[in-house]
Amino acid sequence: MFTTTVKALMTHVSPTLDISAKCRNKITVIGAGTVGTAIAFCLLAQKVTDELVLIDQNEELARGEMLDMQHATMYLDSPNITSSTNYEDSKNSRICIITAGTGPERNKIALVTRNTEIFKAVIPQVVTYSPNSILLIVTNPVDILTYVAWKLSDFPPHRVIGSGTILESARFRYLLAQKLGVSTSSLHAFVIGEQGGNSIPVWSGVSVSGVRLRDINRDLGTEHDPEDWTDIHRQVVESESEIERLKSCGSWGIALSVARVVKAILCDTKECFPISTHIKGCRHGVDKDVFLSLPCVLGCQGVCYIVRQNLNNKEKELLQQCANEMNELQKKLMLE
Amino acid sequence: MFTTTVKALMTHVSPTLDISAKCRNKITVIGAGTVGTAIAFCLLAQKVTDELVLIDQNEELARGEMLDMQHATMYLDSPNITSSTNYEDSKNSRICIITAGTGPERNKIALVTRNTEIFKAVIPQVVTYSPNSILLIVTNPVDILTYVAWKLSDFPPHRVIGSGTILESARFRYLLAQKLGVSTSSLHAFVIGEQGGNSIPVWSGVSVSGVRLRDINRDLGTEHDPEDWTDIHRQVVESESEIERLKSCGSWGIALSVARVVKAILCDTKECFPISTHIKGCRHGVDKDVFLSLPCVLGCQGVCYIVRQNLNNKEKELLQQCANEMNELQKKLMLE
Amino acid sequence: MFTTTVKALMTHVSPTLDISAKCRNKITVIGAGTVGTAIAFCLLAQKVTDELVLIDQNEELARGEMLDMQHATMYLDSPNITSSTNYEDSKNSRICIITAGTGPERNKIALVTRNTEIFKAVIPQVVTYSPNSILLIVTNPVDILTYVAWKLSDFPPHRVIGSGTILESARFRYLLAQKLGVSTSSLHAFVIGEQGGNSIPVWSGVSVSGVRLRDINRDLGTEHDPEDWTDIHRQVVESESEIERLKSCGSWGIALSVARVVKAILCDTKECFPISTHIKGCRHGVDKDVFLSLPCVLGCQGVCYIVRQNLNNKEKELLQQCANEMNELQKKLMLE
Amino acid sequence: MFTTTVKALMTHVSPTLDISAKCRNKITVIGAGTVGTAIAFCLLAQKVTDELVLIDQNEELARGEMLDMQHATMYLDSPNITSSTNYEDSKNSRICIITAGTGPERNKIALVTRNTEIFKAVIPQVVTYSPNSILLIVTNPVDILTYVAWKLSDFPPHRVIGSGTILESARFRYLLAQKLGVSTSSLHAFVIGEQGGNSIPVWSGVSVSGVRLRDINRDLGTEHDPEDWTDIHRQVVESESEIERLKSCGSWGIALSVARVVKAILCDTKECFPISTHIKGCRHGVDKDVFLSLPCVLGCQGVCYIVRQNLNNKEKELLQQCANEMNELQKKLMLE
Repeated sequence: MFTTTVKALMTHVSPTLDISAKCRNKITVIGAGTVGTAIAFCLLAQKVTDELVLIDQNEELARGEMLDMQHATMYLDSPNITSSTNYEDSKNSRICIITAGTGPERNKIALVTRNTEIFKAVIPQVVTYSPNSILLIVTNPVDILTYVAWKLSDFPPHRVIGSGTILESARFRYLLAQKLGVSTSSLHAFVIGEQGGNSIPVWSGVSVSGVRLRDINRDLGTEHDPEDWTDIHRQVVESESEIERLKSCGSWGIALSVARVVKAILCDTKECFPISTHIKGCRHGVDKDVFLSLPCVLGCQGVCYIVRQNLNNKEKELLQQCANEMNELQKKLMLE
Repeated sequence: MFTTTVKALMTHVSPTLDISAKCRNKITVIGAGTVGTAIAFCLLAQKVTDELVLIDQNEELARGEMLDMQHATMYLDSPNITSSTNYEDSKNSRICIITAGTGPERNKIALVTRNTEIFKAVIPQVVTYSPNSILLIVTNPVDILTYVAWKLSDFPPHRVIGSGTILESARFRYLLAQKLGVSTSSLHAFVIGEQGGNSIPVWSGVSVSGVRLRDINRDLGTEHDPEDWTDIHRQVVESESEIERLKSCGSWGIALSVARVVKAILCDTKECFPISTHIKGCRHGVDKDVFLSLPCVLGCQGVCYIVRQNLNNKEKELLQQCANEMNELQKKLMLE
Repeated sequence: MFTTTVKALMTHVSPTLDISAKCRNKITVIGAGTVGTAIAFCLLAQKVTDELVLIDQNEELARGEMLDMQHATMYLDSPNITSSTNYEDSKNSRICIITAGTGPERNKIALVTRNTEIFKAVIPQVVTYSPNSILLIVTNPVDILTYVAWKLSDFPPHRVIGSGTILESARFRYLLAQKLGVSTSSLHAFVIGEQGGNSIPVWSGVSVSGVRLRDINRDLGTEHDPEDWTDIHRQVVESESEIERLKSCGSWGIALSVARVVKAILCDTKECFPISTHIKGCRHGVDKDVFLSLPCVLGCQGVCYIVRQNLNNKEKELLQQCANEMNELQKKLMLE
Repeated sequence: MFTTTVKALMTHVSPTLDISAKCRNKITVIGAGTVGTAIAFCLLAQKVTDELVLIDQNEELARGEMLDMQHATMYLDSPNITSSTNYEDSKNSRICIITAGTGPERNKIALVTRNTEIFKAVIPQVVTYSPNSILLIVTNPVDILTYVAWKLSDFPPHRVIGSGTILESARFRYLLAQKLGVSTSSLHAFVIGEQGGNSIPVWSGVSVSGVRLRDINRDLGTEHDPEDWTDIHRQVVESESEIERLKSCGSWGIALSVARVVKAILCDTKECFPISTHIKGCRHGVDKDVFLSLPCVLGCQGVCYIVRQNLNNKEKELLQQCANEMNELQKKLMLE
């Protein structure tokens, strides 16, 4: 294997590489589209992982992205990057991030059905080669597809996560922070429920350094608020379609968000993120096997805890309504 | 400006913000295409800057990218991101990165001519608002366009830099490191001269921890080498067209490379990079006003030094030949 | 200045270094004792600054520390480190961190008096060479010495900060996070008021992801709490004396805390920290010119805002009592 | 274990923590003295590890340091820090860093003998609980004690490393970089052999960006050099005793160096460091079982390769002479 020059240059000291020792933070990204590659690049650029596998059915596309990332690894800490069409290369991943799926469709049920078919090809392969991994679903519609991944993988619920409202919450915090003049890190604020237009901003929990804004302005986030803070949630929802319109598909925001979730899991930080999780029995009156976003404490095993927010009746109703609609849709997929 | 809620929440202590205090590492990226946005994202994701401006004539495109990056700033250290069509927003930038230009054309002279027209619109504006900035040219063909930027800006040569063979050199080091089994950081190796197919690998300088490979294998990098190390430079050159074929346009590699150059300048690290610089009088027998890549020591003022490599006669001839051809081409642009 | 070898190796390109361009994040640490050097090292190890000056009257001590840090700069990004007895070397610092002072004394008034004498020698020099800097006082007793520094410097209050209860708050959050099983970043909790035994834990603001613990356990932090959460504040206060007993003087905790404050100021992050600030007129009924800790939003100008917490009457009384006692002590210093 | 408040706040999702999943980068530091704690702090401050154990026979000392580090973990990514007198707590460490030993003694043989006794108590315990770990010896005299650790552990040589001349090399590169005006990263230069006064600077390998200084100044590093570059090695050797005189014991430099070695091993970077390794059979004519510093490529298994430098006869003789003297000393320890 080594050339004469290399042998003359270096004395070999250690025995053949024990690969398993390296698998401590291996990440597989499935889908080499705009979102998948932005996530992969962000994981590398931020040095979250040093072993990354990019899997796509389109061998050439994945190879092009791999080469593009690989060649600048001298400006990183020498990560190991591979691309493949073969799931065997994803073996022993700690986290498998699923971005595979078809583009946006008008008809939600058609989109779910088509992406479910894709997941039926992807998930069993992922499970075969990384049976102890954590699945992180990014493909849209993310909540129901997280349910699909859970069903197809037969993993315990704490190891199946959807990106959910993480980006909505990031936008919500960003816009609140701008209006308040403080950093997002000094601010707690969550958007929960279903990803997209039905997402629920939890105004009662918005606080700066532990001071609840509702204790200062009791109408905050309601129709009666003269300062119209609800406009911020409106912007959150609209910005997604605005970005889609302006640049076809958002990628940087989701990449930074996913990179942080991955880091929290790899480093067992116990940070709290609004992500899509199995919410049955989480005390907000939902008794269906659905995945929706609630604040989750993440650790090396995936979801450690779900934080119980003080939702008011309206917020609970919205959550239950989402759950019921999703449950109806799920039945049609006949995954049992 | 502040709502009643904000006023009730916080006591204002300091006077109006002194903007100039913030301009310590402001970066402007001109051109919101694939390369420009990948660079912008990488600068943010790696926390190289906390003040970024993205300028493009296409207001909507730039705005879409800005929104996409802005909304996940809670996972960064609260950088300030703006997009604009107006160069006034780039005021007082430390570094202006030019990625604007038309896509690949078959005819090189036509491409140079068209991009020169674009630069005639861009560079004077950049100079007006950031007269002390450093220009970093990324648009292809990068060497001659760096010359164009120099002429149009009337900046001293140390403040006009082209990305040059930085990516070729990164690929060269990556492939050598793979073959040797060492990290790229333990390896010195440079590709110099003109960016692209005419680039020159300096085999005489390839060394691992100060040990020159030529001292072990004297035919290294020549036609007589039984181990065919020259194949590595062949791969370097081919990979650019391969990436273009597979994914239309490389972005991650150049983004990581440019981010490192920016960091070296902002932090005055005095690191050495193979970048396109004004090489007249650099002791390799070039007496024309051309920009080609040589190892340059970068600091807060741009290029501090050019390192004089021990080029052999063949390497010098190649360099001089490139210089002469570029000089001929430059005359046709009639920028004097 | 350059040897023949260097001249033969490199072509000089840029003109003489413009020093002012480098002063973008210059930090001076005054006092090369255990705390001062731990802070200096932390700023370097975490790459918060790339220009550090260490000033101490003991030239040899400061030089030993400088050499020790300087020699491993190859494992950092080439920061510039100097030591000196001469304040001229601190010129144009962005932040001056004062750790100079005599060791612990039984008698508080004697300690304050002696450290005030030291400050009379230090502060005017700092002000002369860095008239636009931010003063960050770490010397104990920190609150009254921050007042002393304010008086001696004649700086506006937003540019004079004391480390205050930042470490108490960090301990408080750490112990709460351990008990809750979440990360400190998912938790808001502040200890305010006077640094040391009289510090005030604000139980009403303790919240996880925006959920107030008081809404779950209304006796949290009171004598009536069967779960005895108040024990956590007891541990916070005791741990300081425990560390002093076990290792003579804490250094790592304060170093990490100060490094974060410095980063927040340099990067203008608007993060919120419990630090000692001029609290007159901050709406908790204090009308004296005293410095005590409250949650402060920090930016490039120092303190931007003080966040108004919902203190109950007992907490306000404690704060006012501290303020009155400090005011009495301050009068004895006769700094007017 | 959880209080009623915690149970009310959070829904438990995942089963009991699988500790083994967390042991991916556990580091144990043995010895809580100035050097050991500086290393521990640096590993935390630079986020190299998120699981650190500090072991010392002096329970109180170790506990004081642990508390001091633990309480500011909110400014890190929530690392897990423990102190102990019991080696069981070091179980499954990836790397064990040995700093335990008695202070400096005039008589080298007495120092070696005493520290060997300490190692007889320490090493077998380390081996019992972390049989697959890598031993990194920092205690002085480091070369012979690395041999002692190798003998006592019965580990393969690639898993027993001494800090060796890593700090001498860092100083050497720093001083060369200052004289040349380039960053240390653009410079290759090694000090090899025995740590301390007998260390050997390899002038033939000193190069900037692949350009050997000897090709410019053929007398570089010799007595005939009019520019007296050898003075730099003199400063390297003297600075150690200078730091010892000025601040009793260097700590920052060794901490930063060790942190980088640990990172290279954990991340399998294949970087090259001058560290103390088993050099028998490394082609410089040494046939004794001794540990001396040579450039070593480090990976997840410890030493992967030793790079063969082109040493001249004088350098080889010095190396062989060191080896013979160490071998004589080693015989007296009667470890066989």
